Amino acid sequence: MENFTAYNPVRVHFGKDVCNELGTVAKNYGRKALLIYGGGSVKRNGIFDQVVAPLKEAGIEIVEFSGIRPNPRVGDVDRAVAVGIKENVDIVIALGGGSVIDSAKIISVCIPENLDGWKVMTRKQRPEKGLPLLAVLTLAATGTEMNMFSVLQNPELGLKIGFGTELMYPKHSFLDPTFTATVNKEYTAYGIVDLIAHSLENFFGTGHAPLSDRFVVSIVKEAIEVAPKLLNELDNYDHRARILWASTCALNGTTNYGRKSGDWAVHGLGHTLSLMFDTAHGATLSIVYPAWLRYIVQYVPERISHLGSELFGTIDVHQSIQKLEEFFSSTNSPIRLQQVGIGMDKKEEILNHWLDKKPSGMVYDIDEKGYQQLLDWMYGEF
Amino acid sequence: MENFTAYNPVRVHFGKDVCNELGTVAKNYGRKALLIYGGGSVKRNGIFDQVVAPLKEAGIEIVEFSGIRPNPRVGDVDRAVAVGIKENVDIVIALGGGSVIDSAKIISVCIPENLDGWKVMTRKQRPEKGLPLLAVLTLAATGTEMNMFSVLQNPELGLKIGFGTELMYPKHSFLDPTFTATVNKEYTAYGIVDLIAHSLENFFGTGHAPLSDRFVVSIVKEAIEVAPKLLNELDNYDHRARILWASTCALNGTTNYGRKSGDWAVHGLGHTLSLMFDTAHGATLSIVYPAWLRYIVQYVPERISHLGSELFGTIDVHQSIQKLEEFFSSTNSPIRLQQVGIGMDKKEEILNHWLDKKPSGMVYDIDEKGYQQLLDWMYGEF
Repeated sequence: MENFTAYNPVRVHFGKDVCNELGTVAKNYGRKALLIYGGGSVKRNGIFDQVVAPLKEAGIEIVEFSGIRPNPRVGDVDRAVAVGIKENVDIVIALGGGSVIDSAKIISVCIPENLDGWKVMTRKQRPEKGLPLLAVLTLAATGTEMNMFSVLQNPELGLKIGFGTELMYPKHSFLDPTFTATVNKEYTAYGIVDLIAHSLENFFGTGHAPLSDRFVVSIVKEAIEVAPKLLNELDNYDHRARILWASTCALNGTTNYGRKSGDWAVHGLGHTLSLMFDTAHGATLSIVYPAWLRYIVQYVPERISHLGSELFGTIDVHQSIQKLEEFFSSTNSPIRLQQVGIGMDKKEEILNHWLDKKPSGMVYDIDEKGYQQLLDWMYGEF
Repeated sequence: MENFTAYNPVRVHFGKDVCNELGTVAKNYGRKALLIYGGGSVKRNGIFDQVVAPLKEAGIEIVEFSGIRPNPRVGDVDRAVAVGIKENVDIVIALGGGSVIDSAKIISVCIPENLDGWKVMTRKQRPEKGLPLLAVLTLAATGTEMNMFSVLQNPELGLKIGFGTELMYPKHSFLDPTFTATVNKEYTAYGIVDLIAHSLENFFGTGHAPLSDRFVVSIVKEAIEVAPKLLNELDNYDHRARILWASTCALNGTTNYGRKSGDWAVHGLGHTLSLMFDTAHGATLSIVYPAWLRYIVQYVPERISHLGSELFGTIDVHQSIQKLEEFFSSTNSPIRLQQVGIGMDKKEEILNHWLDKKPSGMVYDIDEKGYQQLLDWMYGEF
């Protein structure tokens, strides 16, 4: 096992009606909140009111900033920072999925010293302070609710990158499974793919970490077991709760302690697709993961085999990968580029983008031949 | 799943030489430390010097308080509190195993307001402040290094009980597997039994928490896999590291989220034996656990069966229990009272103690007939 630090100070409130405590909690941190949310679905499904009511009751003044998009843009973050500074807010509350919370994290560290979002993401400005951040989650997927990381894209530069600082840990995260109950079948599946991908990015890192490996297997098995039930009954509380907690555990440290690092190539490669075609994050992962696993068969057949035996009862590497692909497919998440409307005519464009930006993993390098192989698989027959 | 709060702010530094950072860390919290330790083995094996050197280098003044015993007594805690107050320390550092850290937790919350240890344990005095606590662990077993709980005994009253407050979370815990390398075979085995028992106390609680169940299985499987290797090669770093991290995860929340509660009857019953005969904590657990499982077969055969199938590949409840008992026995941890020198002549004394104090679980009550059955099994043939 590698040396590591285990630290995660987020206080997660999990379960039905946990947002009833939101006002009481918020008022320990501030009086005037910048409430960040997305496209307004939270207003249509009533969650907005459930969140605002306890805040108002606690006397918290609310400044709204809406319109954060999936695959969040740093431009939106900078606009929110300006509002927060002008309104002199002393607390940031994120209401939404990963995009909203990731944006709110950067917003919370930019407001105190009027920093530039992209300069923070690219480590050109180092935040020294952060407003207290509370998160109310509406989508089981990214795990951002219980970690210190944010991923934003800069469409002008053609980059989608991650950044983390302990200042960005939410003080509290409120995870009410009923808040995820209206997520449609498509995005529910993407969330499941995402949590599995997070677990696997860690599993295929370096460092001998057998207990973390077991936790990875636990989480992926949980997801594979619950997925068909949940996708068949989207408003089932228990299924929603199980996927929600699994998605949080997939990226809160549990799967990583004792490793040197995860790999994260699949996320990097997938981010390209989101940037170029605005493809949903989860959809990029179910397309790239099987291809990437086929690529690393040459390096770590024994790891794939180990995973296959734990998850699917087979030690055959190719069968293991196929089983995972079949699982993704069974959730109706795409496994080939054509399924998300990215035709063969885009192949060269993607390749050129990769050759230019060189998205790669922290463990396994990918060269030009590798990129070509990946694309062949991602466009391949199935 | 039940509603729950997941919160654990302890910063764990895990790995070789992590204590090199101890001074740098400590000086963020104070200038004068009360250093709590046990019988002096840390002085003989050189760990004391490795811990004191970085503290001195950082200019931390050290007041020593030694002599904390296994099955720690509240009297020692009160004496340490008096020293801490007299010396006006501003930080508490625990160097040892569970007994030392559990004692230091109570010491750290008693010093600021000169509270009485037992009154705190029995909730008659409620601490409002705590000195910052740093823990340096030398024994993989209790998990106290990453939680807010303490268990102390009061020999005069014949009680051994637990108490917890968020004030008692160590700020930092330093877990260097090499610090556990000199623990003898007997106590290494007891530690393994202890971590398995913690996992199972949670597993046999109430509340549908499938992912936590999977984490329990992960931890217990890890322990069962590593135990024979470690017991055969006590100074192997990797084996020590794996058991150390497993023991921490067994009681840091990982195995409990989503449940209503654990049961903890086995700990309660075991504490009686420690009180009456000063039996090592781990030894009491390997004796009581199989008996208690035989007792609850009537209530939750399907849970025992589930565990058996995951751990030992059998769904037969009695075979599952026997396999666990055989595992304990394979580590040379006792599975019957006679093995720790508690003869049949003590049977009635134990029964009377149980009837008087009524140690029982949070889920399954135990009546007089139950106590008798347990004793029959604990004295039974094997």
